[in-house]
Amino acid sequence: MNYGVLTPKEARELIRGGKLVRPTSGIAKGHVQANLAILPKDLAFDFLLFANRNKKPCPILDVIEPGSFEPKLIAKGCDIRTDIPKYRIYKHGELVEEVDNLLDIYRDDFVAFLIGCSFSFENAMLAAGIPVRHIEDDHNVPMFITNIPTVPAGPFHGNMVVSMRPIPYDQVVKATTVTARYPAVHGAPVHIGDPGQIGIKDVMAPDFGEPSVFKDGEVPVFWACGVTPQSIAMTSKPEIMITHAPGYMLICDPVDEDYAV
Amino acid sequence: MNYGVLTPKEARELIRGGKLVRPTSGIAKGHVQANLAILPKDLAFDFLLFANRNKKPCPILDVIEPGSFEPKLIAKGCDIRTDIPKYRIYKHGELVEEVDNLLDIYRDDFVAFLIGCSFSFENAMLAAGIPVRHIEDDHNVPMFITNIPTVPAGPFHGNMVVSMRPIPYDQVVKATTVTARYPAVHGAPVHIGDPGQIGIKDVMAPDFGEPSVFKDGEVPVFWACGVTPQSIAMTSKPEIMITHAPGYMLICDPVDEDYAV
Repeated sequence: MNYGVLTPKEARELIRGGKLVRPTSGIAKGHVQANLAILPKDLAFDFLLFANRNKKPCPILDVIEPGSFEPKLIAKGCDIRTDIPKYRIYKHGELVEEVDNLLDIYRDDFVAFLIGCSFSFENAMLAAGIPVRHIEDDHNVPMFITNIPTVPAGPFHGNMVVSMRPIPYDQVVKATTVTARYPAVHGAPVHIGDPGQIGIKDVMAPDFGEPSVFKDGEVPVFWACGVTPQSIAMTSKPEIMITHAPGYMLICDPVDEDYAV
Repeated sequence: MNYGVLTPKEARELIRGGKLVRPTSGIAKGHVQANLAILPKDLAFDFLLFANRNKKPCPILDVIEPGSFEPKLIAKGCDIRTDIPKYRIYKHGELVEEVDNLLDIYRDDFVAFLIGCSFSFENAMLAAGIPVRHIEDDHNVPMFITNIPTVPAGPFHGNMVVSMRPIPYDQVVKATTVTARYPAVHGAPVHIGDPGQIGIKDVMAPDFGEPSVFKDGEVPVFWACGVTPQSIAMTSKPEIMITHAPGYMLICDPVDEDYAV
């Protein structure tokens, strides 16, 4: 089946029914995808402030307040407890469980944050003739915890997570300018070239996702990643934090171009 | 004295000493200026969420958490209680007092939000040969409460406030594209032309500031304004909210170009 032609609503319904459990890159092509971070209300101000101070990895697309499960601005009719293929539960900084839905877990005091995702600019890359290896090879995008510090807020602190795409050296400038048009979904790269400069020891051993193979003349290019809150959860150790599983995103209604400048 | 050549630090020191009490447009030319909104901590999440949902009128430049008076990201060494020429105190939606400083008033639970200001793109307008009437005529910029609704968050709701500048009809497009480069300080206009379309009855009777005179062939152009929180305070009636007096801004360290895209 070609999941690219699904509407966002159709894709969310398949996911809700347990019929589409896979990384979401390429599903409902052309539509924005979002990262998820759920926290209790008493940590919500500090986390929203953290996101405001770290817009590059944590651009906020929507926030669901207690009493609702629907991200009204970006996914009409969605239930955030069921419409992501896989969720991760962190307690005191430890990943304790991966679950298919949050129906029995969602608390009255939860606030859910939807955060921009770099999958949203991949169509623009493809349209510009730039290869996206993890789509070509049909695997989850490789993600790495860097040594780039975030600006802390309240208890939230830690280093930035980045996604990586191998880019032919003569298309690196184009990959930069094309993605810069999408600041609400991570925008331009944060680093081009030597992974060691940003604390990555082995570009073939990602902290999340799967490795992408390099062809001759390709350079690793790194973009800020909405999985950063999961790294932050590990270092900041809130009582509870629920996220999507890396690469398994919320498929949203807006099209990529809605977030272009 | 030519206040334009002051450094931001010099300007803040004069203001702190009570020696520079006037609208701040044109002071420390080339440096960003900010609007202020102070609220108790228990309303801080809802207000930050309101600002995130209404980025056009309320772009957040910095947030001061309880225990500090310094907006570290945008004004090193500044004391937010003294470094703005005039403050307004709203209680339950009513403007109850205008004061020179907050030394006796600032509470342990206050959170201060610094919000982008359209003064920050006026140098770019002048550099492009576009007149800025309230600078030419040395008066406070005219501001109007519109009928454009904001997206609510918690108790915060109400209509957008805009600033207005008369622009020669053959420079309206240029005024739009020049200011669009500054999305963090309100960016492109929200309306061009007929004031009635956005609920403004008399363009010569602003709700805040002073009227600007029109020359032949000039069109009213309206930009989202960081005074919006004052209109929101009036409709949402929080127990207490402290703001700057319209036109009397915080003069910040970054230069305008730091916020250009």
